[in-house]
Amino acid sequence: MKLSCTQENLNKGLNIIGRLARPQATLPVLSNILLKTENGRLKLSATDLEIGANCYIGAKIEKNGAVTIPAKLLIEYVSMSEDKRINLSVSFNVLSLESDKGKAKIKGIDASEFPLIPEIKEKPLISLPANQLREAITQVSIAPSLDETKPALCGICLKLSDKQVKLVATDSFRLAEKIIYLDKEVENKEIIVPARTLIEVSRIVSLIHPASISIIVSKNQVLFIMDEVQIVSRIIEGSFPDYEPIIPKETETVAIIETTAFQNTLKIANLFARETGSNIKLELNKDKIIVKAVSALLGENISNTQAEISGPKVEITFNAKFLLDALAVIPSMKVSLGVSGRLNPGLIKPVGQKGYTYLIMPLQTE
Amino acid sequence: MKLSCTQENLNKGLNIIGRLARPQATLPVLSNILLKTENGRLKLSATDLEIGANCYIGAKIEKNGAVTIPAKLLIEYVSMSEDKRINLSVSFNVLSLESDKGKAKIKGIDASEFPLIPEIKEKPLISLPANQLREAITQVSIAPSLDETKPALCGICLKLSDKQVKLVATDSFRLAEKIIYLDKEVENKEIIVPARTLIEVSRIVSLIHPASISIIVSKNQVLFIMDEVQIVSRIIEGSFPDYEPIIPKETETVAIIETTAFQNTLKIANLFARETGSNIKLELNKDKIIVKAVSALLGENISNTQAEISGPKVEITFNAKFLLDALAVIPSMKVSLGVSGRLNPGLIKPVGQKGYTYLIMPLQTE
Repeated sequence: MKLSCTQENLNKGLNIIGRLARPQATLPVLSNILLKTENGRLKLSATDLEIGANCYIGAKIEKNGAVTIPAKLLIEYVSMSEDKRINLSVSFNVLSLESDKGKAKIKGIDASEFPLIPEIKEKPLISLPANQLREAITQVSIAPSLDETKPALCGICLKLSDKQVKLVATDSFRLAEKIIYLDKEVENKEIIVPARTLIEVSRIVSLIHPASISIIVSKNQVLFIMDEVQIVSRIIEGSFPDYEPIIPKETETVAIIETTAFQNTLKIANLFARETGSNIKLELNKDKIIVKAVSALLGENISNTQAEISGPKVEITFNAKFLLDALAVIPSMKVSLGVSGRLNPGLIKPVGQKGYTYLIMPLQTE
Repeated sequence: MKLSCTQENLNKGLNIIGRLARPQATLPVLSNILLKTENGRLKLSATDLEIGANCYIGAKIEKNGAVTIPAKLLIEYVSMSEDKRINLSVSFNVLSLESDKGKAKIKGIDASEFPLIPEIKEKPLISLPANQLREAITQVSIAPSLDETKPALCGICLKLSDKQVKLVATDSFRLAEKIIYLDKEVENKEIIVPARTLIEVSRIVSLIHPASISIIVSKNQVLFIMDEVQIVSRIIEGSFPDYEPIIPKETETVAIIETTAFQNTLKIANLFARETGSNIKLELNKDKIIVKAVSALLGENISNTQAEISGPKVEITFNAKFLLDALAVIPSMKVSLGVSGRLNPGLIKPVGQKGYTYLIMPLQTE
């Protein structure tokens, strides 16, 4: 392999895909990045066996070839390089990088040892506006389970039907659903994607700002294409719970609250509640929400937030952290909190924006 | 105890001293902050038994008293409070904090269990411009030893004589000395202060920007007074090595180098050297310094930096990290590196600023 490229392009490409290479991977080649010439460009690849990423960058190629190089050293070296252009060449799996200011040799591992990142040849299922998908991922990725014994709950469900794409996640204590509205019909389809994969997609959107994201689905794999970057991931087998019936259509009591003020009140209450399961009691009554937290060890806190409340007075106990998770991803100035008595789930929605629903189960105390 | 004070003052005071209270201290009261009324003000105190800190804040006191309260919870609670004024009262070692938005009760420990922070009644030894002392601490605190079996080397020596205060630290591999020049004679005195204490003093200077710092020395303790804040610390017993004879008056070869360019070259070289003791070889010759780093595992790097060099060509091996430590605290655009053959110590000094000297022992390779 022999080629030259700009420091800027190489640095950007390495930063996009480099995070998937794990410095302490059991299989040493997984700590490496694959550099490979392909159709007149340089392809950079990294994988952790669950997620694979490719990024293509422009390069002046003199001789085709491939090699894998330790990600950490290569990324740091290229990021610190002050040269505009870097010349790369490979001989016996050693990568030489030369520029005006100096030269480096980095020992690599043969490209044949690098795991194959699956190629997916199917037709794109859908193309979505990148910013909308990114917002949906942020709003939904607070809810998946971390319990790997329930694999379907560790993922985010992508549900295509009619003129909608729904993203849904739940750990069975709370559920987040975001609807992306489309202007044309889509094929019915449901897949569960590891939450990590979508968070990686979201991270890459924030780095390269593509206009749209194409999604291609094969039997076991899903491919996200964002301009010159591809993310390939396994699909989680199993079926996602039939959650729609548990989302109440309406609730008896509804409070409209300023998002930031509610956040601050909950954060203060959680200082007292966090060491005992984040249990806090909310009293919705007339024109305010009173938040109470009691800790046998630390002390107690009572504070209140103004709210516009309709419906009967109610006292209900929630996990403060779960409420805060939702408020952190809702961009609207106001939110609504709907509850029906102290035993039924609560609903949080942004005010003035449709498409997002966060359902939270109450804690049964006393 | 019953008093009221502004959220701003209480928050600032807690942040100044709070870092000394350790959340996981073996003695629970050391995780707490002492609140005590004193001469019409509120005194906040924290200690880790080696360093103690007091901070006085203005308060409207209705009833004198004292209590100790868990630092972490109190600091977070006050920092999140959105009220201008907070009312504090204590009953049975429980602190009540009341304001318009709500109230909290925090369980504390009796003030009598809080360790006494020594009071020092001696006359001030010296008063120094705070910014100059802060810069000196930054430049010298890179060099103390972490090896607690050599206590004198874990401290920074403050040496007063003639019209100078010298701060010196060494771990026997490198030594940093900073001279603060005064306009009048001072009493001869030498004390060794734990590096941590001076770093804490420097941190407080950056928070409250006092004009000057008074230093008071008793038999075993030293007190730093910065406006309303006091830091009390033990003095390290033992004598500091007689280092002055080992600092060469001049060196055979002197290189003048741009600080940032030299830093970048060393950082790149250290990517290859850091896993094998940060050994790098410098060749000073004519108009450049060539830096070489070789790692059997990773590969190698050769790069160069322009320099104005006088004296004979020389090759010398240094610890790249130790060189970088010095360059990080030298604010001048250019630095001088002086060496006399490959076996004698090197000297780094800022160009155009007197008072700072960094001595670094070469590594003997081959």
